[in-house]
Amino acid sequence: MTRPDDRLLAQLRKHYLFADLSDAQMAELRPHLDVRAFDAGETLFDQGDEAASFFMLHRGTIKLFRVSAGGQEKIMRLIQAGQSFAESVMFMGEPRYPVNAQGLKGGQLVSISASAYLRVMQASFASCRTVMARMTERIQSHWDEIEALTLQNTQYRIVHYLLGLVPTNEAASADLSLPTRKGVIASHLGVTPETFSRVLRLLQEDDVIRMQGAQVHIPNVAALRRYSA
Amino acid sequence: MTRPDDRLLAQLRKHYLFADLSDAQMAELRPHLDVRAFDAGETLFDQGDEAASFFMLHRGTIKLFRVSAGGQEKIMRLIQAGQSFAESVMFMGEPRYPVNAQGLKGGQLVSISASAYLRVMQASFASCRTVMARMTERIQSHWDEIEALTLQNTQYRIVHYLLGLVPTNEAASADLSLPTRKGVIASHLGVTPETFSRVLRLLQEDDVIRMQGAQVHIPNVAALRRYSA
Repeated sequence: MTRPDDRLLAQLRKHYLFADLSDAQMAELRPHLDVRAFDAGETLFDQGDEAASFFMLHRGTIKLFRVSAGGQEKIMRLIQAGQSFAESVMFMGEPRYPVNAQGLKGGQLVSISASAYLRVMQASFASCRTVMARMTERIQSHWDEIEALTLQNTQYRIVHYLLGLVPTNEAASADLSLPTRKGVIASHLGVTPETFSRVLRLLQEDDVIRMQGAQVHIPNVAALRRYSA
Repeated sequence: MTRPDDRLLAQLRKHYLFADLSDAQMAELRPHLDVRAFDAGETLFDQGDEAASFFMLHRGTIKLFRVSAGGQEKIMRLIQAGQSFAESVMFMGEPRYPVNAQGLKGGQLVSISASAYLRVMQASFASCRTVMARMTERIQSHWDEIEALTLQNTQYRIVHYLLGLVPTNEAASADLSLPTRKGVIASHLGVTPETFSRVLRLLQEDDVIRMQGAQVHIPNVAALRRYSA
């Protein structure tokens, strides 16, 4: 077993599962941390192995996968540096890993004894509560990110639809008419009418388009092109 | 105070903060739940109010917002039916709401006493652990969703870039040459070279394009168009 050095420990404390632990709690955990290197292709655990630890990836990439009855490999998740994995197994109290883990790009990880981490949590409701606060914050920031990505995606579709209606590519500005009702265009682009209207409103607020009924004026075609790049 | 009926209670138990509570724990919480209706425009709490409760939205839409020194309203989050809000404030142990909450579309919500919920958690480490498991699962499924959305977004850009290179719109199939190096195209589309290559590989695996060096054959232009719709 190799204990993590101070630099690695500092790295670990950036993760939400460790960020708010006291020095005393970290000292209690330290004997239950193990640093190991792995190579590309190396098996870290097999599906069905006893889930005694969870992991923090420090360097490299790890794939979590299952193998179908037909022998086909299905990748469930790629773990990147800074990410943890198998901690849900720990919280679930499941005794066995539900997937296989293998190095995809060689690197280094820290394994953390699940029972040692749970002992620290059980001894301090304040710590449980703080970890739950961090988790809740992450869930909310992910919600925001998913919403932003969906909007960005939709915006890209709508901007490129409008650009496709511009008569020539060379014109600095352009005037065009929507060829059909907004609801039909929205459906064609695979977005809801509400989102379609919302994006058109945002584009007008940012003055990259101006609208009057079905008439669209694009004051600067290049600017609109850059807008959703 | 209006207590939630059984139907509303069943609804509540679909949320991860309540899903795994025992009947005894729910019975303990019940006197600390309050159902209330609200109208569009109605203030539910102001920034700085004592954060004694968190909320589960049953119907309607709520906006969480801040007001700048200049009087400008900034929407922080829109809450939809089925979502909770202000629970991070509870876990953080912050005594005051960091935002204003106002009805955007009238509806109904359940307020839950933060101290009552925390008492239930504090009394049972098993419940804490299960809530943490649920939270971890959500964080991971959000990761997956973010990755899928990012890929979808990128795929859309790349497919539409390729479609833009098709000589005429009417042709059933098409042959084209990438006009410049892949790295340059990737950068133009705002994606990393790795993602660009990954998407081209996926498109080839699904046989909507075939590639040989910089030569791209599109066996069915309409199918490629549908592919990323």
